[in-house]
Amino acid sequence: MYCHRTTCRVIYADTDTMGYAYHANYFRWFEIGRSEMFRFLGLPYREIETKGIFLPVSDLGCRFLLPVRYDDQIMVETSLDHAVKGGMKFDYTVYIVESDRIVATGYTRHACVNGDGKVVRPPPFLRDLINQYLKL
Amino acid sequence: MYCHRTTCRVIYADTDTMGYAYHANYFRWFEIGRSEMFRFLGLPYREIETKGIFLPVSDLGCRFLLPVRYDDQIMVETSLDHAVKGGMKFDYTVYIVESDRIVATGYTRHACVNGDGKVVRPPPFLRDLINQYLKL
Amino acid sequence: MYCHRTTCRVIYADTDTMGYAYHANYFRWFEIGRSEMFRFLGLPYREIETKGIFLPVSDLGCRFLLPVRYDDQIMVETSLDHAVKGGMKFDYTVYIVESDRIVATGYTRHACVNGDGKVVRPPPFLRDLINQYLKL
Amino acid sequence: MYCHRTTCRVIYADTDTMGYAYHANYFRWFEIGRSEMFRFLGLPYREIETKGIFLPVSDLGCRFLLPVRYDDQIMVETSLDHAVKGGMKFDYTVYIVESDRIVATGYTRHACVNGDGKVVRPPPFLRDLINQYLKL
Repeated sequence: MYCHRTTCRVIYADTDTMGYAYHANYFRWFEIGRSEMFRFLGLPYREIETKGIFLPVSDLGCRFLLPVRYDDQIMVETSLDHAVKGGMKFDYTVYIVESDRIVATGYTRHACVNGDGKVVRPPPFLRDLINQYLKL
Repeated sequence: MYCHRTTCRVIYADTDTMGYAYHANYFRWFEIGRSEMFRFLGLPYREIETKGIFLPVSDLGCRFLLPVRYDDQIMVETSLDHAVKGGMKFDYTVYIVESDRIVATGYTRHACVNGDGKVVRPPPFLRDLINQYLKL
Repeated sequence: MYCHRTTCRVIYADTDTMGYAYHANYFRWFEIGRSEMFRFLGLPYREIETKGIFLPVSDLGCRFLLPVRYDDQIMVETSLDHAVKGGMKFDYTVYIVESDRIVATGYTRHACVNGDGKVVRPPPFLRDLINQYLKL
Repeated sequence: MYCHRTTCRVIYADTDTMGYAYHANYFRWFEIGRSEMFRFLGLPYREIETKGIFLPVSDLGCRFLLPVRYDDQIMVETSLDHAVKGGMKFDYTVYIVESDRIVATGYTRHACVNGDGKVVRPPPFLRDLINQYLKL
């Protein structure tokens, strides 16, 4: 299964008084991983919204295995769970680049809604995107 | 089971360009719910750290049922899952106060670590806290 | 000059690895101070937007005098600079409640724009608001 | 005067319900600009802390000239104000890459403190860093 890889740097703003990256901030990195995969597949998320489709997060989860600290360079591996119908689901694995150790794993599930916030079936262009992903 | 209730107001900083509160920001509200429950139980989380014990998040999840918008007043109901051993787990339900509708449910699980970041058994004062909670 | 007072609690999410509240997060507290003053004056900011007027920040500044730490309770004193024409300006003083010491002072200046993002003269209802403030 | 250039991408988490990047989030980009300049000069900020010196923000300001939106690629130009004694001051100019238009200008001033939080004179290695910057 194809994994898209993006690197980020932990900044001071991400950290907390325990000296670690605060748990909620991992979802920024997940967003970056997901966005860059959309862009890599030729359809930036911004264009999906231009077409009148929005993909708000409906469900998420994350396990934190090892702490991440200020200035650590991390890699986010993002993959698409193509078995999911009626929306989209992304899986993420976060590594510290220097140590190559997994620090967190998680997912986000997204509803497919129109401009009125109503849940709709994924339009053909999203299914095409998923099919294109499967051929990578 | 006792639920501690805290209200928060959604601020502009919490929202995103979709017009909703951004998913990662719900974990700020979960933290507020959890902190205020610790304080209510007579042991603010700050004092737990003073005693040399830290409770970093090891695992979390959240389901988003309805959108939350700027200036909505929300209520966070926090409860403690006393069946969990070796750490702590909190469950959260978020309501919009005006409509009394549930907008999100989630949990955070916390490891119990010492000042060196090593996982340790919950000390007696944490077990006492859990027992005190069960009597409410 | 009337000062509106609001209290906030510093949460873990606000802090950084230096053990202090991260500088950018003070603007969350400024926003809370400003919002609660609008509400107190009888015109929540949300209603201003409903009337087609938006007040994006055009300019801001902040001096940090003393550090603020996790779980500190802070008070934000917000006042309106009525001498400003063509927009709005708010001044803020942040105290630690326990010590009653000033930890930061700052301001935000706001343009008055319509729904197309075009700068407009403040409509009568905003001037009325300012006049009402001056009578407090 | 040498300007260090770093690019960032505006993510959903940075935006607000007005459809713009929220003003406080610009300070994340300023931090990234400043950090990458330290790294470029051969002394990552993390190493400065390892040497027992901390540079908390003592004062900041920002003017917002044009809105920035989701997925805009921005460039942060960071320069060091070498005339400042007793601490450090950085100036920032933020551009949208696509349009090459300036969207914000700002600065952060930093105190030089030791591990006890006491203000100290900048140690020789920081003066060396500034001298090295001036030769670029």
